[in-house]
Amino acid sequence: MAPVPASHPQVAVTLVLLLSMLGLAAGGKVLVVPVDGSHWLSMREVLDSLKEKGHEVVVVAPEVSLYIKPSKSFVMKTYPIPFTQEELDRDFHEFTQDTLKEGSFLERFVRIYQRFEKNSALLLSTCEHLLYNKELMRYLEESKFDAVFTDPVIPCGPIVAEHLSVPSVYFLRGIPCGLDFEATQCPNPPSYVPRIFTEHTDHMSFLQRVKNLVFDVPNLFLCNFFFQPFSKLASEFLQRDMTVLDLLRKASVWLLRLDFVLDYPRPPVMPNMVLIGGISCTQEKPLSKEFEAIVNASGEHGIVVFSLGSMVSDIPMKKAREIADALGSVPQTVLWRYTGKVPSNLPQNVKLVKWLPQNDLLAHPKTRAFITHGGSHGVYEGICNAVPMVLMPLFGDQMDNAKRVESRGAGLTLNILEMTSEDMSNALKTVINDKKYKENIKRLSELHLDRPIHPLDLAVHWVEFVMRHKGAPHLRPAAHDLNWIQYHSLDVIAFLLAVVLLSLFISFKCCMFCCRRCCFKKGRTRKPAKSKSH
Amino acid sequence: MAPVPASHPQVAVTLVLLLSMLGLAAGGKVLVVPVDGSHWLSMREVLDSLKEKGHEVVVVAPEVSLYIKPSKSFVMKTYPIPFTQEELDRDFHEFTQDTLKEGSFLERFVRIYQRFEKNSALLLSTCEHLLYNKELMRYLEESKFDAVFTDPVIPCGPIVAEHLSVPSVYFLRGIPCGLDFEATQCPNPPSYVPRIFTEHTDHMSFLQRVKNLVFDVPNLFLCNFFFQPFSKLASEFLQRDMTVLDLLRKASVWLLRLDFVLDYPRPPVMPNMVLIGGISCTQEKPLSKEFEAIVNASGEHGIVVFSLGSMVSDIPMKKAREIADALGSVPQTVLWRYTGKVPSNLPQNVKLVKWLPQNDLLAHPKTRAFITHGGSHGVYEGICNAVPMVLMPLFGDQMDNAKRVESRGAGLTLNILEMTSEDMSNALKTVINDKKYKENIKRLSELHLDRPIHPLDLAVHWVEFVMRHKGAPHLRPAAHDLNWIQYHSLDVIAFLLAVVLLSLFISFKCCMFCCRRCCFKKGRTRKPAKSKSH
Repeated sequence: MAPVPASHPQVAVTLVLLLSMLGLAAGGKVLVVPVDGSHWLSMREVLDSLKEKGHEVVVVAPEVSLYIKPSKSFVMKTYPIPFTQEELDRDFHEFTQDTLKEGSFLERFVRIYQRFEKNSALLLSTCEHLLYNKELMRYLEESKFDAVFTDPVIPCGPIVAEHLSVPSVYFLRGIPCGLDFEATQCPNPPSYVPRIFTEHTDHMSFLQRVKNLVFDVPNLFLCNFFFQPFSKLASEFLQRDMTVLDLLRKASVWLLRLDFVLDYPRPPVMPNMVLIGGISCTQEKPLSKEFEAIVNASGEHGIVVFSLGSMVSDIPMKKAREIADALGSVPQTVLWRYTGKVPSNLPQNVKLVKWLPQNDLLAHPKTRAFITHGGSHGVYEGICNAVPMVLMPLFGDQMDNAKRVESRGAGLTLNILEMTSEDMSNALKTVINDKKYKENIKRLSELHLDRPIHPLDLAVHWVEFVMRHKGAPHLRPAAHDLNWIQYHSLDVIAFLLAVVLLSLFISFKCCMFCCRRCCFKKGRTRKPAKSKSH
Repeated sequence: MAPVPASHPQVAVTLVLLLSMLGLAAGGKVLVVPVDGSHWLSMREVLDSLKEKGHEVVVVAPEVSLYIKPSKSFVMKTYPIPFTQEELDRDFHEFTQDTLKEGSFLERFVRIYQRFEKNSALLLSTCEHLLYNKELMRYLEESKFDAVFTDPVIPCGPIVAEHLSVPSVYFLRGIPCGLDFEATQCPNPPSYVPRIFTEHTDHMSFLQRVKNLVFDVPNLFLCNFFFQPFSKLASEFLQRDMTVLDLLRKASVWLLRLDFVLDYPRPPVMPNMVLIGGISCTQEKPLSKEFEAIVNASGEHGIVVFSLGSMVSDIPMKKAREIADALGSVPQTVLWRYTGKVPSNLPQNVKLVKWLPQNDLLAHPKTRAFITHGGSHGVYEGICNAVPMVLMPLFGDQMDNAKRVESRGAGLTLNILEMTSEDMSNALKTVINDKKYKENIKRLSELHLDRPIHPLDLAVHWVEFVMRHKGAPHLRPAAHDLNWIQYHSLDVIAFLLAVVLLSLFISFKCCMFCCRRCCFKKGRTRKPAKSKSH
């Protein structure tokens, strides 16, 4: 008998995990292909944790970007793109101004559509400049990464992962047209899973369910419209037919920034989906002296934190004056993140700041309310710190996020374009003074925070898992190997129907045959009798 | 403005969790309605942990049972049932003997069916004696429990939870007829989720998919056959119409003893499902001197652990002699859990023991193979400790478990009724000497153990969660409030179809009307012309 080496796997694996937790294990090598904007901000925290655990983190990013800047936590490899920082900043500024510009529905639709088209072209071109940068790609090929960590909303990372044949971990909130459901084989019944942009809850009336189903139709075109150019790019670059859906199906693990406290208990989570909603709400750091002084000076009334997110820090003057009026009507000190021209009617209780430590301020016991655009990071920070919200959604999933907070009685939603100064003042006073809002957000917060492991640790665990095991094929549902007909067992049902019908047909024919033989016999035996009688 | 009390929820909740982890927090009160047999064994470990965390645990069990015995970890409340311990033991012994008796398929089927019918009646009667025990029920009503922790395979616990209006946590491997899927609104496509008793993997051929679908049909009757008496009992006792399905839908959290390493990545996990497969594989304890001596004396060849589980410890003599012969053909020392008459041909290398510390022995580096009946606890302990297996399934989910291990190249399955001594010898030698088996089970083990939190801690967390928050309504999918037609959007589709058809009909009618008017006009303008010409 061949001797089997003595081993003790349970202890061994525990040891590896322990070592890796202490950051002593030989680190892995992870390539990060990020998406700029707020998407980058929470991803960065995972990179810091990965670095702390002893892994080598390499980030590839265009030379010109909004937020992706070098850090001690990672090696940054940049590639040139045909835009300057000024052009990007201007483009971005125009985007937020467009969003806040008033007008008829059609005007706004055309404006947003044109902007969307322009941005898509920019994102595609950026991806092309990464893939066809020979020097950088050679470096990536030679680097022997253990995993690619990427946000697939812009499917450039998945193309790189496929080219390098490295397993990938996705980090996202969702893909607006629902391609994430298709790519994970995750059922998504329109009867109780609200579609994006519908602002529905999970409990819908008949007409809402009709709207929900109808909203699925444009998704079919939207997915194609946005991802088709990337499919073309992938096929050209990889030199084989490859759609974005094909690429996304290959992900090892999907880290989804969802939590059922905010996002309705949607149906199912597939084996390779991990929910990490609330990842950006980490232990708060002490406030700087400047902010500490403002908060302490606020007295018994406390403060209100006001930020329209990382994307919008400047709004048209008319709107700014209205908002300033509203903010003047509450006794709280308002900390407003705002970089535009100071409105002339700015009340004494409002402090304008270029940047604010949002999570740390929300965590302060003196914070009474949070005025937010409803981005998922901000909303989760509001929930985590149990601060009632006034939501002024602007674009993307923000309308839906706002509706979700409102439907749970933890905040009020305003239409920033249509609201008056009085509307805002009333909303702010209500969420601060009506105890119901504080109670509801406190309950949500308790549910959200009562979890066996922090989402950040969970995210890091799964990136390390994929690095350690070269993917996670044991989490891949066999549904990926079935076509639509097979998945729904239509071929099996057709076969069984055919068998039943054939059996019936044969039984019928047999009966007929027997009857005929009987009749014929009778006929034959009767006939001679008849002929005899004649 | 009403002053809002200063609070710091993130720290507060963290503190509660921390205190609860240290067992210092004010404990909750949990009522346990267990199911006897192997189901009880892994549940008991959760109770030990709950007790350690400072909770009060009350177990209700019949006076006569196989394994449910008093312990320091819980208060035990018993109720009389009309069976003696001798009757129960005899009944149980007969059950295992029936299972191991040879015979034609029909004979075996009739035998098992009769046994099943008898056992069902016994379980129902036991439940009736709990529910109608006035003194015990009054005690339960007065005890003000925070949660009911129960195995719903015998739906007595869910009836008690409903009667007491206390949220419940379920602890189970699954319900054979698939009622767990229905009760959780969990999709369960027969195209890639293998049905119990089919022995399929998740990758099925066309004919296997046909068989898988066909196997769903008897499930409809089986569920009804087994659970109908409990539905009747529930309706009578609760004095309102109530089916077992209605009861199961109310569970707050389902703790499922599944892990995708063994159980194929089946489709979806609903928000209130938590996977805790491998819960019984905890840190091994040092072996007693007796076992340590046997293991050390085994030399370089090491040992083989052999147990047919908690339910079977005695087998017919003819089979025992065949097995003894097979065990004598390997150089390993075999530790066999066996309480029957000693076979006369027992080889020197086989040590018979009445009980063995299975997990601790499997964890020993000298263990080369594990001969098991394929019960889920044993299989997970084999995986956890990376020991290749020879599986001899007897009943229940054991055939499927065995097939799952075999399909992953980590063990070999034998039919205990049909196998010869040589078959068993060959299988045992193969899993020990063919390195492939050890490599495969080692890989499975590494994947299984690489998890962010131990399943036991996860189970305890969710029981505590339900106690702390009085249930988990935020995890309840809205699908529960839809009927079958609504869930599948059939009413919406019918409505949209009607709208489309009506629009087409109206358009058609309008066209016809216009055409007719045109024709009529033409006709009228032509007619007078005609009459004029006449």
